[in-house]
Amino acid sequence: MMGLVSTSDGLPTPAAPPRRGRGRRPASEVRAAVLHAAGCLLFDEGLPAVTFERVAAAAGSSRMTLYKWWPSPGSLAAEAYFARVETALDFPDSGDIAADLRHQLRAFVRLLAEEGAGRVIAQLIGASQSDAALRAEFSANYSRPRRDLALVALERARGRGQLRDDLSLDVIVDQLWGSCYHRLLIPDEPLDERFADELVDNVLRGARPRSSR
Amino acid sequence: MMGLVSTSDGLPTPAAPPRRGRGRRPASEVRAAVLHAAGCLLFDEGLPAVTFERVAAAAGSSRMTLYKWWPSPGSLAAEAYFARVETALDFPDSGDIAADLRHQLRAFVRLLAEEGAGRVIAQLIGASQSDAALRAEFSANYSRPRRDLALVALERARGRGQLRDDLSLDVIVDQLWGSCYHRLLIPDEPLDERFADELVDNVLRGARPRSSR
Repeated sequence: MMGLVSTSDGLPTPAAPPRRGRGRRPASEVRAAVLHAAGCLLFDEGLPAVTFERVAAAAGSSRMTLYKWWPSPGSLAAEAYFARVETALDFPDSGDIAADLRHQLRAFVRLLAEEGAGRVIAQLIGASQSDAALRAEFSANYSRPRRDLALVALERARGRGQLRDDLSLDVIVDQLWGSCYHRLLIPDEPLDERFADELVDNVLRGARPRSSR
Repeated sequence: MMGLVSTSDGLPTPAAPPRRGRGRRPASEVRAAVLHAAGCLLFDEGLPAVTFERVAAAAGSSRMTLYKWWPSPGSLAAEAYFARVETALDFPDSGDIAADLRHQLRAFVRLLAEEGAGRVIAQLIGASQSDAALRAEFSANYSRPRRDLALVALERARGRGQLRDDLSLDVIVDQLWGSCYHRLLIPDEPLDERFADELVDNVLRGARPRSSR
């Protein structure tokens, strides 16, 4: 039953005792099983495979439950994607913004280009252009929180004097991660770690020759 | 007959005399009429309205002709989009790369945000994630040629000493225009002329404080 989540110590807790056999599973356990099943379908077969019917069957839950919790299969797919990639996108804090940005951008590019997430998130962003529920879900639970995480790191670096005071930090987010989405969605040039390093280098050093700065 | 293209002087040319009434129109004229009709449907009603049936009816051509010339309605829609926006995206050459980039980025942002092209190109890029013919058409006839135009301008500026010699110019394209596509496709922050100006400023000056450069 790879779709089910087990507690770390295997013991029942007083607040929500797990019931066995024909008993009802706690909602949190059903939710985790549904997200796991949706994530497997999404990464193995792509966005069109994530239907309420197939996810319910794979997770051992009812379609009615899915209808209650998600406004569209797209929004369920989006949440399953976020749950799956969250730990791969942790933001380090080494004290050196150049090293931290390089580390994070490289991990992001690897996730997109090598670990199958690129095709999936491209389909999600593509579908979100004509699915308002998916677009809202994507913004609220993924792109907006990730933008905020990056801003925290950039503000910390500015506080340390590593970035200039009059810099628009929100624009830097577009010039780093947005540039990766650009190469993912309009694939004219390679999306690789060399690109990630050059994004960071360009953003920090600027394009002007040294003499004219 | 807004779908038809008229010659500028109204006179027939010896090479391809326009025939009236029941005569056959030259292919170039039919093609222009089809692209114009597809562009109107695209900007007025969106991508789903661009079907071979509706475009053929609006342009006074046969559906068979459209099947012969375009592999999918999406690729026809893409070409119609390019024909429509081409003149709005001219690249100036004033001798000052900062001014030229600001001019071009502002025009691009206005086109996307105010002149209705943003919704259309977002639908095209979205659909291209699952339509290989559209993706190929988009790259060959729009994104790749536009990338090349930008590179020509950036290389000219580098030749004038306005950009540093070791700069990866192709990465700059993603950090300027790609950042705009990012705000268009994942609309968490405003896409406006202030943003265009800050993109150019960040790219040229860099994010480091003056003292640490």
